[in-house]
Amino acid sequence: MIQYFKADPWKIIEDGFNPEMNEIAESIFSIGNGMMGQRANLEEDFSGKTLQGTYVGGVYYPDKTRVGWWKNGYPEYFAKVLNSTYWSGLTLVINGEIVDLSKIKIASFYRELDMFNGVLNRRSTVTLNNGIQLSIESTRFYSLVNKEYSALRYRFKANQNCSIELTNIIDGNVVNKDSNYDESFWNEVSQESRDKEMFVAVKTKKLDWLLATACISELTIDGETHSGQNKNSTSSKIAQTTYKFDLKSKQEVILVKHVISSSSFHHPEETVISNAQNTVRKMSASSFETHLEMSSKAWNAKWEMADVTIEGDVSAQQALRYNIFQLHQTYCGDDPRLNIGPKGYTGEKYGGSTYWDTEAYCLPFFLVSSPSKISKQLLIYRYKQLDRAIENAEKLGFTNGAALYPMVTMNGEECHNEWEITFEEIHRNGAIAYAIYHYIEHTGDNSYLLEGGLEVLLGIARFWAQRVHWTEKKQRYEMHGVTGPNEYENNVNNNWYTSYIAKWCLKYTKECISNTQNKFPKIFAEIAKKTKLSIESEIANWRHIIENMYLPYDPEEQVFVQHDGFMEKELIPVNQLAEIDRPLNQKWSWDRILRSVYIKQADVLQGLYFFEDDFDIETHKRNFKFYEPFTVHESSLSPCVHSILAAKIGNMDKAYEMYLRTARLDLDNYNNDTEDGLHITSMAGSYLSVVQGFGGLRVKNQTLHLNPVCPKHWKSYSFKILMSNNPVNIIVNQNQTKVQNLGEKNLTFTYKNQTISLNPGDNWES
Amino acid sequence: MIQYFKADPWKIIEDGFNPEMNEIAESIFSIGNGMMGQRANLEEDFSGKTLQGTYVGGVYYPDKTRVGWWKNGYPEYFAKVLNSTYWSGLTLVINGEIVDLSKIKIASFYRELDMFNGVLNRRSTVTLNNGIQLSIESTRFYSLVNKEYSALRYRFKANQNCSIELTNIIDGNVVNKDSNYDESFWNEVSQESRDKEMFVAVKTKKLDWLLATACISELTIDGETHSGQNKNSTSSKIAQTTYKFDLKSKQEVILVKHVISSSSFHHPEETVISNAQNTVRKMSASSFETHLEMSSKAWNAKWEMADVTIEGDVSAQQALRYNIFQLHQTYCGDDPRLNIGPKGYTGEKYGGSTYWDTEAYCLPFFLVSSPSKISKQLLIYRYKQLDRAIENAEKLGFTNGAALYPMVTMNGEECHNEWEITFEEIHRNGAIAYAIYHYIEHTGDNSYLLEGGLEVLLGIARFWAQRVHWTEKKQRYEMHGVTGPNEYENNVNNNWYTSYIAKWCLKYTKECISNTQNKFPKIFAEIAKKTKLSIESEIANWRHIIENMYLPYDPEEQVFVQHDGFMEKELIPVNQLAEIDRPLNQKWSWDRILRSVYIKQADVLQGLYFFEDDFDIETHKRNFKFYEPFTVHESSLSPCVHSILAAKIGNMDKAYEMYLRTARLDLDNYNNDTEDGLHITSMAGSYLSVVQGFGGLRVKNQTLHLNPVCPKHWKSYSFKILMSNNPVNIIVNQNQTKVQNLGEKNLTFTYKNQTISLNPGDNWES
Repeated sequence: MIQYFKADPWKIIEDGFNPEMNEIAESIFSIGNGMMGQRANLEEDFSGKTLQGTYVGGVYYPDKTRVGWWKNGYPEYFAKVLNSTYWSGLTLVINGEIVDLSKIKIASFYRELDMFNGVLNRRSTVTLNNGIQLSIESTRFYSLVNKEYSALRYRFKANQNCSIELTNIIDGNVVNKDSNYDESFWNEVSQESRDKEMFVAVKTKKLDWLLATACISELTIDGETHSGQNKNSTSSKIAQTTYKFDLKSKQEVILVKHVISSSSFHHPEETVISNAQNTVRKMSASSFETHLEMSSKAWNAKWEMADVTIEGDVSAQQALRYNIFQLHQTYCGDDPRLNIGPKGYTGEKYGGSTYWDTEAYCLPFFLVSSPSKISKQLLIYRYKQLDRAIENAEKLGFTNGAALYPMVTMNGEECHNEWEITFEEIHRNGAIAYAIYHYIEHTGDNSYLLEGGLEVLLGIARFWAQRVHWTEKKQRYEMHGVTGPNEYENNVNNNWYTSYIAKWCLKYTKECISNTQNKFPKIFAEIAKKTKLSIESEIANWRHIIENMYLPYDPEEQVFVQHDGFMEKELIPVNQLAEIDRPLNQKWSWDRILRSVYIKQADVLQGLYFFEDDFDIETHKRNFKFYEPFTVHESSLSPCVHSILAAKIGNMDKAYEMYLRTARLDLDNYNNDTEDGLHITSMAGSYLSVVQGFGGLRVKNQTLHLNPVCPKHWKSYSFKILMSNNPVNIIVNQNQTKVQNLGEKNLTFTYKNQTISLNPGDNWES
Repeated sequence: MIQYFKADPWKIIEDGFNPEMNEIAESIFSIGNGMMGQRANLEEDFSGKTLQGTYVGGVYYPDKTRVGWWKNGYPEYFAKVLNSTYWSGLTLVINGEIVDLSKIKIASFYRELDMFNGVLNRRSTVTLNNGIQLSIESTRFYSLVNKEYSALRYRFKANQNCSIELTNIIDGNVVNKDSNYDESFWNEVSQESRDKEMFVAVKTKKLDWLLATACISELTIDGETHSGQNKNSTSSKIAQTTYKFDLKSKQEVILVKHVISSSSFHHPEETVISNAQNTVRKMSASSFETHLEMSSKAWNAKWEMADVTIEGDVSAQQALRYNIFQLHQTYCGDDPRLNIGPKGYTGEKYGGSTYWDTEAYCLPFFLVSSPSKISKQLLIYRYKQLDRAIENAEKLGFTNGAALYPMVTMNGEECHNEWEITFEEIHRNGAIAYAIYHYIEHTGDNSYLLEGGLEVLLGIARFWAQRVHWTEKKQRYEMHGVTGPNEYENNVNNNWYTSYIAKWCLKYTKECISNTQNKFPKIFAEIAKKTKLSIESEIANWRHIIENMYLPYDPEEQVFVQHDGFMEKELIPVNQLAEIDRPLNQKWSWDRILRSVYIKQADVLQGLYFFEDDFDIETHKRNFKFYEPFTVHESSLSPCVHSILAAKIGNMDKAYEMYLRTARLDLDNYNNDTEDGLHITSMAGSYLSVVQGFGGLRVKNQTLHLNPVCPKHWKSYSFKILMSNNPVNIIVNQNQTKVQNLGEKNLTFTYKNQTISLNPGDNWES
C-alpha cells in the first residue's frame, strides 16, 4: 500500500496533483457538518475523472424496486442518497482560455484538510497553455455553528496583465452517477441571479423534497470591491453571475461565496425559499473569516473531548484523528431524524442512511467520547421509526406489535430488496436492543426507556418470540432461515449469534419491564396499555423460549457453532488460500463463497464481543482461535471486533495487525473503492480498537474499567472519556497508565481489577 | 372454476364474446407448428384488452442483467422471447366506421380450435354503429408441412350496399409487453408494398437477428378477383395494401394472406429476404385450401399415434387432447437447436427456451408417443450446448471439463440471475443425465452415447464430483448450498433429491464408460482423448463418492429427509392452513415460505418417481404419506408426479385428484395467469398422469410394462405407444385391458407381472 497522502498529526495533505487519484482525493478531502456535506471537487472546470457530489441530510429519492422475481414483503422503493445542488463551482477564463487542471501545466499543488479547524485549503500554481502563470488559493468549509451555511473563498493572481471572465455558478442540474441513463431526480422550481445574489430552487421528482440554495458573492480586486458590471443569467436549475474585467499582474482577486442551503426536511415547504434568501443576506453581513473562525472554534471545542493522541507513530495518529473527524462531520446529534449513512456525505453508493452499523459501531464511539445527548438522539431515531418497524414486520406476517427494524432505511421504511438480507438478516433487531442496554449501562440514564425505549424493546422481543419455532422432535426452540453478520452465509438455520442475541433480547426486555413496573408503575401502566401487553402470558412464553432456545455448540472443538452445518464444511484456513483467490467476493462465485467456511465479518465473535461477561476467558480464546483463521474480513466492520478480542485474550500482535486493517482503510485505499466515498461507519472501528482494544476500556453499570496495554509500535497514547458527562483523561505508555479526573465529580474506576477513587482534578498513576 | 370454453372431444370452443376473457382466449386459441406460433389476436382492430404476440423459434433478445448486488458468475444478459412481426392483422372500414369488436354490437361469436386439423376458425355476426350488419368468418393456420408458411382466409358479407376500405397489414413495429418504457427490440431494415406483395424485414437491435416476412394477398368478391386499384404504402417496419371498393348487399369478400416468415436462425443472413420473397411466390401458386388440407393431413397423421381417448368424460377428453396438441405445436423435433419454452409460442413471459422441464416432463411424453428421433433431437440439443455448459461451470470455478447446464437458456448460455437458482438449483444437471438413461432404456438406441452423450455424462459427472465435499468429521461426502426442485427452500445442505441424483449420475456415467470401453474401444479411446479422461483416478474418486455420499434419512419416520433441518420445522400439514393463506406465494413473505414446511413441488417424491426401482413399495408409501400432506403444488409441474406415485401405491382417489389439478390448468385458468400464455411444459404432466399413472406404463430395458387401472369417473381410455418405433395400442376399461400390436414386430410385454408375447397384428385381453 503506497501512502499517497502525506503523514501529519493534524492534517491530511496532498502534495502534487495526480489526476488518476482525483476521485479518491475528492472522497478523502470531503467536508461536512453533520447536516450537509460535499466531496472535494475542484472549484474550476475539470474535464478529467471526477465524481461530483453534494449531499443534504434527509433528502432522498425513492427509486423503484426492480427485481427478477418479486417477493411478498419487498419494499416498493430504494431510498437513494441524492446528489444535489452544487454550490462551490466556478468557471475561470483567462485571455480566452478555460482554467482546467486536467489541461494545463501544474507547477505546484498542495491540498490540506485541516482537521483541527474543519477546513479545506488548496494552493496551486499553474501555467496555462497561453503562457499565463496563475497562483490559486481556495478555502472551503461547512459551518459547524450555522448548519445551513457553507462558504468558499477563492483567490488568484496572474503573473501578467490579462483579461478575466469569472463565472460563479449555483448548479441544480445534477444527476446521480448511479441513475439510469442519466435520469435526473430533480425538477426545476425557480432560479434567479441578480446583482450579487444567486438562487436556485429544485424539487425531487418524487416526494417533492424542496431544496433552495441561495448565494451572495463578493468579488474584490486587491481588496477593492469589484465595481464593474456583472452579467447575471439563469437557465433551467442554474443561476450564474459572470464578471469580466482586466487584471493587472500580481493583483489579487478574491471571490467569496456565502451559501445557504435550506430544505423542506427542515422547514415548512412554503418558507424554504425565503429562509434561504433571508438567511444568506444575514450571514453575508459577516465576513468569510468571521464565520470560519466561529466554525473553527466549534471544531476545536469538539476536539477537546474527542481527540485521541498517539505518540511515536504519526501515521497512526493522523489516521485515528481522520476517522474521528469524519464521524463528527457525518453526525452531530442535532436532529433525531438523521443518522449515519455508510458513506456519510462523501458519496452516493449504498443509499439509505441507516444500517445496523450505527448501533453496533458508531454508538459506542459517541457514547465514550461525546455528551450522552448525542447518543440518545440515535436511540430516539429508532423510537420515532417504531411504527414503521411494526408495519414492516406486519408485511412479513408478524402480529401483535412485533417490530422488525429495516436493514437499510432513510425514514423507517425498509429499502433493501434482496430476500436473504431484507427478510433474513434480522440480527439487526438485536443490535438495536443492545444499543439501549449499552446506553443505560454507560450513562445510567433510564429516561429513554420511559420515553419510548421500552416500547422499542417490546416490539423487538415480540418479533423474536414469533420468529423462533418449537421443534417437537428436539423439544427446543430453533430459528431457521436467517443470515448472520457473516453475509457469506445466507438462509442458515440456528445462527448462534442471531439466536443468542434473540434470547438476550427476551431476557433484557423482561428485566426492563419488571424494573419499570416496580419503579415507575404509572408510566408502565400507560406503556402496557398502549402496547396491549398481556404481561403474564407474553412473559411466560418468553421465559419458555429463554429456557429452551437452541444454541449450537460443538463439544469436540468446544466452540459455539456459527450455524447448523458449519462444522461439516471443508475447514481450510484462510492462510492456505492462494493469493489469486482473494478477495473472495471478486474472485469466487457466490455459491462457492456460501459453501466455503470463510467468514466475511465477525459472527460468533461479534457475540462474544457484545456479551463478553457471559463467557470465561478460555471460551473467548477457544472461539477466537477457531474462527479467526477462517475470517477474511471482507467487511470493513470486521477487523475491529477481532482486534478488541485479540487484545482481551492477550494476543497483542494479532490485535495490532487487525487494528492496522481498519485504521487507514480509506487513507490508503485499502479496499480499492475509496473513490466511491468513505467507509464512515467502519471508521468507528479503529477508535474502538484503540480505546476498547488497547485501552481495555469498558463501562459497566456506570463504572469505568481499564485494562490497558500500549502497542510496542507506539510510545504512548491517550484518550478522553465522559463518565456521567464528567471528562476523564487516560494516558497509557509502555510502562504506566495515568488517569486524570478532569471533571467536577468523584470518579471511581477499576484498573486491572484494582478499584480506585479519584477526586475532581486529581491524577492517578499505575 | 367456471368452464368458459365449451366441452367437445376434438375442439376448443368459445361461444359468445366476452371482452374480459379476450387475453385468456388469445392464449388458449394459440396456434403454431413447432417453429413459429401466434396468439389468437383478432384480425380486425381491437381497442379492448389484448396481448398481441407472434413468435419465431430461436430468435431472441439479450436483455441486460440488472441486479441489486452483482455476484460473480451472473450471466451478462437474460434471453428474452421476442414478440415479432405481426402478419395476420387488417383494418376493415365500412362506410367510414372501423370494425372494432370492442365498440360494436356482437350478435354472435363462435371461435373454435379444431385440434384434429390444426386450424383456428371464427364466425361472427356484428352490427356496426352505422347499422350495417356484417357476417365475418376467418380461418388461420401455421402449416405443419412447410414450416415457414402461415395463412389467413378472411371472409365477410354485409346486409346492405356499402363502401369498403380494407387495409391489409404486415406490422414489424411491435414491442414486448415486458420491455422497459415500450423500448423496441427491432430495428428497421426494409419494407415494400407493391401490387399483391408486401414485405417487411427487421433486425434485432442486439445480435442482429434478421426476420423477413413476405405476404401475397388475394382479394375476391363473389369469387371474382378484385380488379380495382390497391393503394400500396409503407412506413417504418410496416407494409400495407389498401383496397377501396363498393360492396353490394350479400356479396362475399374473401381476403387470403399467404405468408412466409424467414429468419437468419434458419438461413444465411444474405438470403433471408430473398428466401421469404421467393418462397411466398411459390406457395401462393397453390390455394389456401390446398395448403390447409396438406397441413390438416399432417396433423391427422400425428394424431394417429399421439391421441389418447377417454370415454365417459368429454371434458377430460378435450383437456388431454388440448395438452397433447399444444405440446406438438411447440415442438416437432425438426431442429436440434430448438427446444420447448415454458410458454411455447403463446406468450413472452419467462424468456429463455429451455428449462429442466424438457428432460423431466416433456421428453417422457415424446418418448412414449412419438418416433424416437424426436426425443433424440432433445438430447442432441444438450450436446450441442456442452461447450457452453463447461464454460458456465468454469465461470463458477469448476475445472477439468465439469459441465453445469443452465437453469434457463436460449443458446446454451445461462440467462437466469438469482443466485439461489442460477448457482444452486443444480439438480437440473441430473435430469439431463437421466434423460439420456431414459432414452436408452426406452429405445435401446446407444448411438447418442457415442455421438456425444457420453461426453455430456462425463461433464455432468465431473461437476458433481467437484460439487460435493468430504467432511472430515463425518467421514462422508456432503453437498451444501443447493436449491432442490422444491424452490420454496433455498440454499440448503444435503438435499436428498439432488444428492441422490448426483450419486446416480456418477454410477451411471461409470457404467456407460465401462460399456463403451468394452463394446466400442476405438470410439471410446477418441472420447477419452478428447475429454482428457484420467480413467483410473477419476473413476476411483467417483467410486469413493458413490460409496460415501450422505443421503439424509429419518430413522423415526423411516423416510428420506428432504434436506438437513427439514425435520426440525413445524410440521403442520397443508390442510390445516387457512384458506386465506393460499396460494402461499401470493400471501406469505419469502422468509416465511422458506421457513415453513410447505413444498412447492415434488422433491423427495420426484426422486422416487425417477428411481422407483431402487426402493420397495413400502418406502414409496411412507414417503408419499409423509410428504404429500406438506405439498402445496404451487408449481404446475408438481401434481403429475404425485398423481403417478399415488396410482402406483394404489391410492386412486388421490391420483385422480392430482390428475385433475394438471389436466385443465389453462383451459380453466386454474392459476389465474393464462392470459400471459399457456403452461406448455406442464401439459406433459397430464399425459403422464394418464399413461404412467392410470396406465401404469413403464418401459425398462426396452420392455413394456403395464399395470393399468381405469379411474371410476371414466368408462375407458386408450393410448398408443411406440416400442422400437412399433405402434402398440392399449385400451383400458373398468374390467379389462386390451393390448393391440399394431406394428410389424413381435411384442413382449408384462401385464401386472405376467409376461405376454404378441405377434404383429394380434390383440390380447386381460
